[in-house]
Amino acid sequence: MPTTPPSLQALLARRRPGHSLEAPFYLSDAVFAADLEHVFGRHWLFVAVEPQLAEPGDYVSVDIGRNSVLLVRDDDRQVRAFHNVCRHRGTRLCAAQHGAVGNIVCPYHQWTYDLAGTLIHADHMPADFDRSRHGLKPVHVRTLAGLIFICLADDAPDDIDAMLRETAPYLAPHRLADCKVAAQVDIIEKGNWKLTLENNRECYHCVANHPELTVSLYEYGFGYRPSPQNAEGIQRFKDTLAASHARWEAMGLPSREIDTLDQRVTGFRTQRLPLDRAGESQTLNAQVACKKLLGGFTAAALGGLSFWTQPNSWHHFMSDHVVSFAVLPISADRTLVRTTWCVHKDAVEGVDYDVKNLTAVWNATNDQDRRLVEESQIGVANAAYEPGPYSPYTEELVEKFCNWYVQRMRALAL
Amino acid sequence: MPTTPPSLQALLARRRPGHSLEAPFYLSDAVFAADLEHVFGRHWLFVAVEPQLAEPGDYVSVDIGRNSVLLVRDDDRQVRAFHNVCRHRGTRLCAAQHGAVGNIVCPYHQWTYDLAGTLIHADHMPADFDRSRHGLKPVHVRTLAGLIFICLADDAPDDIDAMLRETAPYLAPHRLADCKVAAQVDIIEKGNWKLTLENNRECYHCVANHPELTVSLYEYGFGYRPSPQNAEGIQRFKDTLAASHARWEAMGLPSREIDTLDQRVTGFRTQRLPLDRAGESQTLNAQVACKKLLGGFTAAALGGLSFWTQPNSWHHFMSDHVVSFAVLPISADRTLVRTTWCVHKDAVEGVDYDVKNLTAVWNATNDQDRRLVEESQIGVANAAYEPGPYSPYTEELVEKFCNWYVQRMRALAL
Amino acid sequence: MPTTPPSLQALLARRRPGHSLEAPFYLSDAVFAADLEHVFGRHWLFVAVEPQLAEPGDYVSVDIGRNSVLLVRDDDRQVRAFHNVCRHRGTRLCAAQHGAVGNIVCPYHQWTYDLAGTLIHADHMPADFDRSRHGLKPVHVRTLAGLIFICLADDAPDDIDAMLRETAPYLAPHRLADCKVAAQVDIIEKGNWKLTLENNRECYHCVANHPELTVSLYEYGFGYRPSPQNAEGIQRFKDTLAASHARWEAMGLPSREIDTLDQRVTGFRTQRLPLDRAGESQTLNAQVACKKLLGGFTAAALGGLSFWTQPNSWHHFMSDHVVSFAVLPISADRTLVRTTWCVHKDAVEGVDYDVKNLTAVWNATNDQDRRLVEESQIGVANAAYEPGPYSPYTEELVEKFCNWYVQRMRALAL
Repeated sequence: MPTTPPSLQALLARRRPGHSLEAPFYLSDAVFAADLEHVFGRHWLFVAVEPQLAEPGDYVSVDIGRNSVLLVRDDDRQVRAFHNVCRHRGTRLCAAQHGAVGNIVCPYHQWTYDLAGTLIHADHMPADFDRSRHGLKPVHVRTLAGLIFICLADDAPDDIDAMLRETAPYLAPHRLADCKVAAQVDIIEKGNWKLTLENNRECYHCVANHPELTVSLYEYGFGYRPSPQNAEGIQRFKDTLAASHARWEAMGLPSREIDTLDQRVTGFRTQRLPLDRAGESQTLNAQVACKKLLGGFTAAALGGLSFWTQPNSWHHFMSDHVVSFAVLPISADRTLVRTTWCVHKDAVEGVDYDVKNLTAVWNATNDQDRRLVEESQIGVANAAYEPGPYSPYTEELVEKFCNWYVQRMRALAL
Repeated sequence: MPTTPPSLQALLARRRPGHSLEAPFYLSDAVFAADLEHVFGRHWLFVAVEPQLAEPGDYVSVDIGRNSVLLVRDDDRQVRAFHNVCRHRGTRLCAAQHGAVGNIVCPYHQWTYDLAGTLIHADHMPADFDRSRHGLKPVHVRTLAGLIFICLADDAPDDIDAMLRETAPYLAPHRLADCKVAAQVDIIEKGNWKLTLENNRECYHCVANHPELTVSLYEYGFGYRPSPQNAEGIQRFKDTLAASHARWEAMGLPSREIDTLDQRVTGFRTQRLPLDRAGESQTLNAQVACKKLLGGFTAAALGGLSFWTQPNSWHHFMSDHVVSFAVLPISADRTLVRTTWCVHKDAVEGVDYDVKNLTAVWNATNDQDRRLVEESQIGVANAAYEPGPYSPYTEELVEKFCNWYVQRMRALAL
Repeated sequence: MPTTPPSLQALLARRRPGHSLEAPFYLSDAVFAADLEHVFGRHWLFVAVEPQLAEPGDYVSVDIGRNSVLLVRDDDRQVRAFHNVCRHRGTRLCAAQHGAVGNIVCPYHQWTYDLAGTLIHADHMPADFDRSRHGLKPVHVRTLAGLIFICLADDAPDDIDAMLRETAPYLAPHRLADCKVAAQVDIIEKGNWKLTLENNRECYHCVANHPELTVSLYEYGFGYRPSPQNAEGIQRFKDTLAASHARWEAMGLPSREIDTLDQRVTGFRTQRLPLDRAGESQTLNAQVACKKLLGGFTAAALGGLSFWTQPNSWHHFMSDHVVSFAVLPISADRTLVRTTWCVHKDAVEGVDYDVKNLTAVWNATNDQDRRLVEESQIGVANAAYEPGPYSPYTEELVEKFCNWYVQRMRALAL
């Protein structure tokens, strides 16, 4: 028989710093089940933006592995999250990805819950049936300047408060909660979710693969360190960064880097980064895609406030739009990447913005990254694959992602 | 690593009466393999109707999991059943779902068996090759008033005789063996076979989900008990039932309920039930779908003789047609439901009946039930799912199905 | 729970000679993993023909299970083989099945290898990064008169030398290395690779299943032994064979049978066999499909030099073309069969040959065999399947394949 595969414990114990992970982390169904249980089951996940829930009764359902979570705005305009499962025989309550309801009614036998999750009606149940013990099971939910995070665990990590407190001043000026969704696109990558994250956490691959993105993007803003090869370029970038930060901070826009990626349970990184050329937005000409600017902005050239969270999201807040990415694992070798573009809620399509132009850069970039992730998934499945060395000059944030993952799994899965 | 799933033994031991089953019963590949081995491998299964085998040489192949069974009418007009596997190198003998043959010839090397399963020819075999030891392997088969049941076990449960003896008087007047198949439709439900059965065993969901079916169906005939909510309606139904039974029994049609669903190995339930409105047939106007009545019937308003068998069938025998349902598991999360409509063999399509009208109610109902089963399969896969309470007033037959299943598995799988 | 399946060790130990294999050999994922590790991982495999790599820089990628192997002709015109995996983060280097390159450049971060597999460039790596330790991992490769064999093991079986030495005189006169590929067709059979091989190793099934192939093929050349049923026909064939061999050997074409199928690690069989009717080629009229003959041949009626290798190929070298078959396992129940037709490199399509005519016999035959393999895969999955007896008169080479497989697995997998 084939050799017994190494245990997750052994794999975690022998992880080689500065190198890509061993193949079972990307391939094994057992590791994937552990990822779902410990990483996606016990950490804060980005799952939606508040503009998806504009009015009371609006709902969104999100799948985290086999778990379906229902986000709903209640009559007090609070965002609530529930397991999307009837307490009678377990039927999924809302099959659509989004919609609007008065109450939440199970399609099978019409058990009926209000927007606070309370069971308010169930036919044919006996006199001693206690409705109060059959309400929807709640899921932890927090909002951050329009971003919605959930945690499936009974006890959610409490350092979410620190992240909210520290990053809200950066994000709040863009007023995402006052936006509308201009476009949302799901793609499925035939690869492990960790390959999707690793791909996101470096720009070593950008120049050769992302012609549309690199119109506006300075690759040096994405985890580069000076090396003999690029010291001069990085110094120029640092000068630009310093000048930009001084200008933006003077406008009341916090801009300096905060990086807790591998130092906290709820790890994140944020920084306002200059954009190249017109310097306004991640578009094919680096100019704004939406004439109606966000919040109270009057200047367009605010660069991009980038925000990365462990384990599953990244975001770029610009003067004219916000683009958010949620990574949702499906199986060891399938990952959903959901991209959401938001513009000012009063912007008029065809007048203030054109959806094709707004989404052109990231639709192209996502497809390029999908291909890279898929080729990596195929490659690491080879018996000949062995972890290779990360570049210390360009892949530091990939290493931090791997560090975070390995630390969290060691803490929870052993 | 994720927690080890509970063993089947533990799951069976801790089953909570009056509640839906725990998730692994619907999701686990190991439980599904046990279901195939013990439930579908050791009990009597409904698989076809005799009109599918009108003449000697007619055959039908039926898949029970990975097992293919060949039903054939032999030259003495007996229905026989064999494993559909050549004794040479194991090739499937008949790939088609139905057809007609003189002998059964393997497509690979032309080993040839007669309709009694005897190997009558094999080329190139040595002088000492014993053909008599290489006949087709038989499968137990019994017919009941035109319904064909098989059992894959070496020793088939012998209480099939009691079921045949007790129910033949109910079914025989409809003379199913003298019918022809007017239509047969296979649908695949993305759900566990037990969810399909549980769906079949209650009508709590009918009013909200089955507008076509409830034209003719009194839901109270399907496992309802009086409760404060419906006591008056049930009393009215009981009065109707008593009057109908008196009328039908006077016509020589046994009608009273027999229910052994969770009391016998070969559990079943039967009862002749009144139909609403025109009271004749399960159609969109409750009138007969076929002008040529079955058997020797002269009256059309004979209600519906319903017949349910554990673990995989239900049937409605009406004055003008018989509709039969066979549930055939494919995998833990895929189930084939085969629906067969039979009419008098002399009925003429387009004159006596219209196939679209004949099949309208159950094609619509099956599709509605498919959706409910699929939403339940998705729902119970959530980590948040826990077994919920059955209504004692409307889900008694679901509970009996679960009781039967748990009892049988405890008896066989431990 | 279902009975624990027998271990591979137990299955190998109890294999019954003269009978087909037990079902887990065709169905079990664990056995398939062992097949990949021990059979396909430690033996010489036929994977391509030299005409696929005509010029330096030409490459072909071949999948052996999850392993992708890159074949490339280097600047010295040697055929080399590498694991198709970047040494950085494991990305597949060449996604296409074939192409031409100057160097081998990873699409992700542009790590660049020359055609000898040496890493010649990697951006952003530190001063102490040792490129010489990050070259492509080589795979053993040998060529035999234009056929390319690889071995994935660290230590490849050394009796490949004997096979090359003994068979080169048979194959060389056809000068395959001077051919071009006229057609290549991949089909996927929904069956285990061993069923594909067993199907190839007997012609008991030919008469009833292969009307196109049997135009030119004498079935008696494919492992038949005299029996009471066919003694006369075989004697006539032997006379034809002796006369043909005398004629061909006088022309300098070795023709007599060599059979080491179950006697060596690198087992093979070869023999030049007469063809029926026009006697020239495996076509619909047994005449050559290409007017431009191979090598220096002036006569067309040279029969077919057949060459079978364990575990995954067979070939027919004729006067006008060579047809080669590679069997590449995908999963326990999926197998890729790649068929390659080669003609003289100076032959002109539409003038000297017509692709449809050239490929007609084997495209039809492959499809017929695919169906037989698939019906066998379905059949052996039945619980009722048990290994049946091989015909000693027609299935001797099937038995030799099974013997070889069981011997090799016993030697390596225990």
